[in-house]
Amino acid sequence: MKNFNINEDPHRRYNPLINEWVLVSPHRSKRPWQGQNETVSSDSLPEYDPTCYLCPGNVRANGEVNPAYENDFVFENDFAALKQEEIAFEENATETFFKARPERGISRVVCFSPKHNLTLPEMSVVAIENIIHTWQKEYIDLGNVDYINHVQIFENKGSVMGCSNPHPHGQIWAQSSLPTEVEKTQNNQKAYYDKHATTLLQDYLQEELKLNERIVIENDHFVALVPFWAIWPYETMIISKRHFGKITDFTEDETTDFALTLKQLTTKYDNLFETSFPYSSGIHQAPTDGELHPEWQFHMHFYPPLLRSATVKKFMVGYEMMGESQRDITPEKSAEILKNQSQSHYKHSI
Amino acid sequence: MKNFNINEDPHRRYNPLINEWVLVSPHRSKRPWQGQNETVSSDSLPEYDPTCYLCPGNVRANGEVNPAYENDFVFENDFAALKQEEIAFEENATETFFKARPERGISRVVCFSPKHNLTLPEMSVVAIENIIHTWQKEYIDLGNVDYINHVQIFENKGSVMGCSNPHPHGQIWAQSSLPTEVEKTQNNQKAYYDKHATTLLQDYLQEELKLNERIVIENDHFVALVPFWAIWPYETMIISKRHFGKITDFTEDETTDFALTLKQLTTKYDNLFETSFPYSSGIHQAPTDGELHPEWQFHMHFYPPLLRSATVKKFMVGYEMMGESQRDITPEKSAEILKNQSQSHYKHSI
Ligand SMILES: O=P(O)(O)O[C@H]1O[C@H](CO)[C@@H](O)[C@H](O)[C@H]1O
Ligand SMILES: O=P(O)(O)O[C@H]1O[C@H](CO)[C@@H](O)[C@H](O)[C@H]1O
Repeated sequence: MKNFNINEDPHRRYNPLINEWVLVSPHRSKRPWQGQNETVSSDSLPEYDPTCYLCPGNVRANGEVNPAYENDFVFENDFAALKQEEIAFEENATETFFKARPERGISRVVCFSPKHNLTLPEMSVVAIENIIHTWQKEYIDLGNVDYINHVQIFENKGSVMGCSNPHPHGQIWAQSSLPTEVEKTQNNQKAYYDKHATTLLQDYLQEELKLNERIVIENDHFVALVPFWAIWPYETMIISKRHFGKITDFTEDETTDFALTLKQLTTKYDNLFETSFPYSSGIHQAPTDGELHPEWQFHMHFYPPLLRSATVKKFMVGYEMMGESQRDITPEKSAEILKNQSQSHYKHSI
Repeated sequence: MKNFNINEDPHRRYNPLINEWVLVSPHRSKRPWQGQNETVSSDSLPEYDPTCYLCPGNVRANGEVNPAYENDFVFENDFAALKQEEIAFEENATETFFKARPERGISRVVCFSPKHNLTLPEMSVVAIENIIHTWQKEYIDLGNVDYINHVQIFENKGSVMGCSNPHPHGQIWAQSSLPTEVEKTQNNQKAYYDKHATTLLQDYLQEELKLNERIVIENDHFVALVPFWAIWPYETMIISKRHFGKITDFTEDETTDFALTLKQLTTKYDNLFETSFPYSSGIHQAPTDGELHPEWQFHMHFYPPLLRSATVKKFMVGYEMMGESQRDITPEKSAEILKNQSQSHYKHSI
């Protein structure tokens, strides 16, 4: 009988952060593709677009005029999925099948730059530091609202990721409840912390640094790696080397190193298929419920859909929806490919 | 303070099948859309395509020739995500972060019809009954393989759902382990059964029939409804009225009614936006591990991505990936819209 070879044989890997498995089929990456091709985002956007509702000085859907902002700019989402209004509600404790609860929240948009055509990899480290400072301010401001217990900072980049405007921007959805995925992450971190008195991701990071098989970027304060249990082809996670739970715990040096990591990682992504690389990214950090949460380790996820080229993505469909997430290329191979990408952007390198 | 109105106010709903929540934002359906438009699948496919690897008589990637099949046709997937080979492996019980296990399985393709351009809604009830008989045969055949404990029957329809060939077909991935989503469903059905000695979905179905707010189709043996906790805009679930755990438990009347339900539901889907409606569908049923599984209730999920038109889909991206699934239109509204669709296909009605 053949011995298990993780680089060749179909296998499942376990994700201890959310207690779920992923099916890995290394041999399947040679499958021919006759399916859907994505549209490549145009490289020739103007610096200012008079029809863009995020550019400085332009009018938004609700009639408000954007200021002539110079760095980043935050405003309340005009079509928010959450509302601030308090709703009277009495829970029916015996309900099994029709459990619903009103949810209060605040949803904001963060423009990363006044320039319509500038994405993270092409911004200066200082400009990215400004965005980090804005995320910190928002985490505090929103977290201080009495009914807000969780602040989700995220970015959808590229039309394939549902982004409806190429102007560089992210969002923040802050709300009363812990969203499903965050609650899973919290429960698993908590169980680990209760057992070991250390954090799951700090201990994991130490093992990854020793193995050095899935590390994409390492500097003094942060590591970007392809998690052992990654589901998206080029999924990565940024973890801080020091143990802390939230973005407001950054020292100034950590802010600079985080900005640098973001710039380098997104540059490598763009270089991979020489395209403005689509992804959804998001920060997972301690809830703002007033508890200490020593079990929480600050980290940021990148979920990019592209698989083979600028136009062929991985589809998480039938089997993945009914069964479990599935990937074709191993995380080790993806990490190696990303690690070997240049840190200077393909559009600007000479 | 305003009283909670489930038709208007942002809220979360609980899914007892997988123990997860969904965020519902009824007011958000008026959001303008400037994002990605999907390509509409062409309506003018030929009945036979000489370049299609699923048409009768054509040669597949591995050199095999398809028979001149007249109903449906099953073959082993040429680029399977799972392999049948047995792999030697010793589990390291103390491993926390790098848990991986070889996974054995068999993956098959089921062509639904020899006609390249015929999808389920346009097939006769008898032709759909044939497909159901094939699914039954496969569930038995694959389930009888000693190392196979779960048989996942599914269909990816439309290029937007990662389908690379419009020839009507589904897939079956059979494997040793219970996939993540199935395991969740099993655990929650089991806990309910242990407590009530009835099945979760039978009791739920009785409540739904009483309320009659989310029922799309009902006949003697099956109900198609939009679950209270649906995440996709027009998500539905087909549940049998009688309690049984697997497709091989169907009586002949149930086979006919299931075929009819499939035809009517997919016809309503096509009529909704007058397009060949994309979706991933899949059957959830008892594992083939030799146990009795009285907790299991046979059901089938439909996860269609379209939201507003034939070209605008719902994106499950940033917030949904980091936080939780989110929907704009209420399940009650979706059910009403689907219920009101005609049961004769828009392409053939006079
Ligand atoms: O097997 P197919 O049809 O080539 O591939 C399709 O379905 C599979 C199972 O859901 C997915 O893993 C693939 O991403 C998708 O493109
Ligand atoms: O808020 P936006 O950018 O208009 O919308 C985008 O991001 C949201 C949050 O991930 C999703 O719910 C939408 O489906 C997506 O199109």
